[in-house]
Amino acid sequence: MAKATKPAGARRKATAAKLPADMTASEAVAAIRNGELTSEALVSSCLERIDALEPQVKAWAFLDRAHALDQAREADRVARTGAGFGALHGVPVGIKDVIDTADMPTEAGSALFKDYRPREDASCVAALRAAGAVIMGKTVTTELASSTPGVTRNPRNVAHTPGGSSSGSAAAVACGMVPLAFGTQTAGSVIRPASFCGIYGFKPTLGLISRRGVLLQSHTLDTIGVYGRTVEDLALVAEAVGVHDAADPVSINAARPRLTEIAGGEPPLPPLFAFVKTPAWDMMADIAREAFGELVGELGGRVVEVEIPSLAQAMECQRIVQSAENAGYYGLFRERAPELLSEGMTERLKSGARVAAQDYIRAVNMRETIYDAVEELLSQYSAILTPSSLGPAPKGLASTGDPVMNGMWTYLGVPAVTLPLLEAEGMPIGVQLIGARRDDGRLLRSARWLARHLAGEV
Amino acid sequence: MAKATKPAGARRKATAAKLPADMTASEAVAAIRNGELTSEALVSSCLERIDALEPQVKAWAFLDRAHALDQAREADRVARTGAGFGALHGVPVGIKDVIDTADMPTEAGSALFKDYRPREDASCVAALRAAGAVIMGKTVTTELASSTPGVTRNPRNVAHTPGGSSSGSAAAVACGMVPLAFGTQTAGSVIRPASFCGIYGFKPTLGLISRRGVLLQSHTLDTIGVYGRTVEDLALVAEAVGVHDAADPVSINAARPRLTEIAGGEPPLPPLFAFVKTPAWDMMADIAREAFGELVGELGGRVVEVEIPSLAQAMECQRIVQSAENAGYYGLFRERAPELLSEGMTERLKSGARVAAQDYIRAVNMRETIYDAVEELLSQYSAILTPSSLGPAPKGLASTGDPVMNGMWTYLGVPAVTLPLLEAEGMPIGVQLIGARRDDGRLLRSARWLARHLAGEV
Repeated sequence: MAKATKPAGARRKATAAKLPADMTASEAVAAIRNGELTSEALVSSCLERIDALEPQVKAWAFLDRAHALDQAREADRVARTGAGFGALHGVPVGIKDVIDTADMPTEAGSALFKDYRPREDASCVAALRAAGAVIMGKTVTTELASSTPGVTRNPRNVAHTPGGSSSGSAAAVACGMVPLAFGTQTAGSVIRPASFCGIYGFKPTLGLISRRGVLLQSHTLDTIGVYGRTVEDLALVAEAVGVHDAADPVSINAARPRLTEIAGGEPPLPPLFAFVKTPAWDMMADIAREAFGELVGELGGRVVEVEIPSLAQAMECQRIVQSAENAGYYGLFRERAPELLSEGMTERLKSGARVAAQDYIRAVNMRETIYDAVEELLSQYSAILTPSSLGPAPKGLASTGDPVMNGMWTYLGVPAVTLPLLEAEGMPIGVQLIGARRDDGRLLRSARWLARHLAGEV
Repeated sequence: MAKATKPAGARRKATAAKLPADMTASEAVAAIRNGELTSEALVSSCLERIDALEPQVKAWAFLDRAHALDQAREADRVARTGAGFGALHGVPVGIKDVIDTADMPTEAGSALFKDYRPREDASCVAALRAAGAVIMGKTVTTELASSTPGVTRNPRNVAHTPGGSSSGSAAAVACGMVPLAFGTQTAGSVIRPASFCGIYGFKPTLGLISRRGVLLQSHTLDTIGVYGRTVEDLALVAEAVGVHDAADPVSINAARPRLTEIAGGEPPLPPLFAFVKTPAWDMMADIAREAFGELVGELGGRVVEVEIPSLAQAMECQRIVQSAENAGYYGLFRERAPELLSEGMTERLKSGARVAAQDYIRAVNMRETIYDAVEELLSQYSAILTPSSLGPAPKGLASTGDPVMNGMWTYLGVPAVTLPLLEAEGMPIGVQLIGARRDDGRLLRSARWLARHLAGEV
């Protein structure tokens, strides 16, 4: 039966001595800073978790234990010298394998990139290193961050998909292999896996995190996102890497947002949520609709059901843009090395090749018009509350599930966060909150309030 | 026979008392500032020229003599109070009828916009007014700034096209109806008419002049340009309106370039030009090729012939982008009011509707790669020297001529200036100089040097 549950972080059994691998990133950073924990101990604990669970979960595309420990010992050495602590000092982070790393391969889940070694870190990886993080390894992605699944299984039940395309990142964070990981989202590739695996996921405003050095499938849509086990951790890592980068044309040229400070604060008033079913509501699993009904009931006067008529158009526009830009960017692979693409990818690229330029141009141009309506709504509500996925993770590994609950928001470039607040038949379902562009801090603050409220804390 | 001539400004007969309508904008501003001339006298002189020549030339889509004189008298009143002079104080400017004016209709050469009265000035018109200019009236454009001609004739020989799409603006400046005018260029709509009418024309770096309030046919290509009768005048007006505008996504967010100061200075060394024939050289009129041969001969060691292999691709990409974006923006007109479009426009939109999104996306994305090669070349030369058009203005009004010599440069977003330095069979041919993006001042300085050099002044 569907039920609203406590946040995933609280679900784990409390023990007198929490394993380092089960600490949140914020806890770990504080413990390392206080000298109560070393990065080496933390990374070792995570590696033990990986040793125990990786055979079943298969979250990692590349992992060099010695290299991870080297980074951890270097972080500890820097800490001992008193040379300063980064915001993520000593904390291991999993990197989706479409994001370039100078010290590890980046294979993008595709034979096209077999053994590819980038010369430089992606901007977001460089920012992680500058914040003192340990780059743990590369996590499994679906083929070219699209829909053909990788090998990863859902750690909540390995007979189920973890979602995709950021499959390995979501699975790794969900079972304590790393406290933090990066994903990317073009339709629903960050939010959906978090919903399926029962963790927190955050796709910030388009342009908050630079995409330089990340496999490009759609310049209009591609957005870097982060996974963690609390809202605070999402704020911590997004703030650490949310810096302007002139190399990404959509990068926001503004001061780094104070996400940790804002998200950690109290809202001036209890948030008021706009519950938006979206045109995909009828596609949802009955059990998921029931769970949302209960959640809305529990929130009482703090939620109002609202309709946004233009969302159907946003969904259609997202599909057109993704399809056309996929064909624009990946079409060359199809022309040059068709044998290295899956059948599913080939079919999707064929379909994308049929999109007319004029339809694509209009789909891109419709975005600001639709966003105006959403922004207007968000001046009256703290956030939009809407499902993160059509239901719990589907059984089987043949599909990573449907991103239909996410594509419209990705298209609009708005920040989206998913919270593991619901459960049905033993599997998690995420609650998605949507904020106005560049208002990521307030969105995370509302998300944290919601998690605490349902845990009975506020 | 082809011959290199003195600049057009020097061609007019020198008289003891020059008519105000024959003054350059720089001369007029100085005279108004010194109290030797009033704006009313200047505008009156221009109106007399219009009265005399408009029946043959047909440059104006809208002209309200009383309103123009009202603006002039207001400029004179402000001048008398000592409240300050704008950079274009009291100078009349012609505005292409695709650019919004709050006080005049903006009909875009199309029945679709008959009697349309914008509520606001375009940003570039607002900037003109802020600089003290008189908005003289609206000049004839081809249908929707595309290729179906308007009624304007070439003032140098009314049996010939003035070029297009900025037909009225080029013709009006060429015969002294106004010293300055605005045009717009998506392929060759600023540079080609200047070449055909024997005046100076300047298409600045994409993003120097805001496009807010200007009819959009291609967000990737559309660029505002200016006409004048000297290089100094081009610098004067472009500097006055070259301000950042957050409302135009491509607007350059940088301090206003000091175009007048830079263009008016001496080059540190005599310029060295890269003569680029382009892949369209074989399409040129024999007489125009001869004229260029003579010009290159005359420049001797100051010019080197250079080939840019990727220009053929730039030409092709420009056509794809223009065709697809035209269909994207104007296609709605074809769906909703096909009877209000010309046959030529309908055919062009049908053709644009057939462009595949993936080809369009690649054509857009190729731009920076090709530009890198051009920028590299421009680090070794002061400017690229290349024809402004395939030859002199074709006879007849059925076509506005071929923009093939311009489209590649518009696509690359580089500044282009045309100088009326050549003549063949009694009709002018422009010499086009191309600079690096955002290096508009140096380009105009090189252009001024070239004009003075051929006039025997340097």
